[in-house]
Amino acid sequence: MIEVNGINIGEKFNSFSEYWTPKIVGELNGQFVKLAKLKGEFVWHNHKEEDELFYVYKGQLQIKLKDKIVNIDQGEFFIIPKGVGHSPYAENECHVILFEPKATAHTGNVEHELTVKNQEWI
Amino acid sequence: MIEVNGINIGEKFNSFSEYWTPKIVGELNGQFVKLAKLKGEFVWHNHKEEDELFYVYKGQLQIKLKDKIVNIDQGEFFIIPKGVGHSPYAENECHVILFEPKATAHTGNVEHELTVKNQEWI
Repeated sequence: MIEVNGINIGEKFNSFSEYWTPKIVGELNGQFVKLAKLKGEFVWHNHKEEDELFYVYKGQLQIKLKDKIVNIDQGEFFIIPKGVGHSPYAENECHVILFEPKATAHTGNVEHELTVKNQEWI
Repeated sequence: MIEVNGINIGEKFNSFSEYWTPKIVGELNGQFVKLAKLKGEFVWHNHKEEDELFYVYKGQLQIKLKDKIVNIDQGEFFIIPKGVGHSPYAENECHVILFEPKATAHTGNVEHELTVKNQEWI
């Protein structure tokens, strides 16, 4: 019987270094699983039709919403409902796993210098 | 400004002890995020229309497919495509995060004594 291994998240994170450029590592049911390294503040945006999950694999992430601040520590997650404006902020380098529909652009409704048009598989 | 915290996966795992009873911890885009504790061998089944992601949060999981065995260590994940028969097996207690459509029954096409009809939120 052939034996294969799962996809190692840590190894995938080691394979790239750029910030704010989500990489695709899995696809299921019309959704992508993505990894991203974050540092500093991202552009304020929303996703009109898509909920977005942030799971902090390493480090700490803060997500600023209109009326509150969400502090997400390592091993925690938070779901931003569709249409809700948000701005991720990481004081130090932070590694996150994202779950979101394939159609989701990471800068949502905003065209920005940080916008990556063609997100790549790793 | 109000500050709130992310949802802590470790604390959620500490809140239940049963094996093979996935608990819902999040919902987005018609999908559920679930946590499950596994030990021993599960019933062979498939999900006709739904891909299913297993992420091993703690421990080790083996998933038997028809033609291969998938070894998923802590920090690794694997996606079982729809229609593919599979049987999870954990020699020792294993904690997994599942990502799958809301409609997914954990025993798939099989009605079994382990089938949990109404999966609960924690």
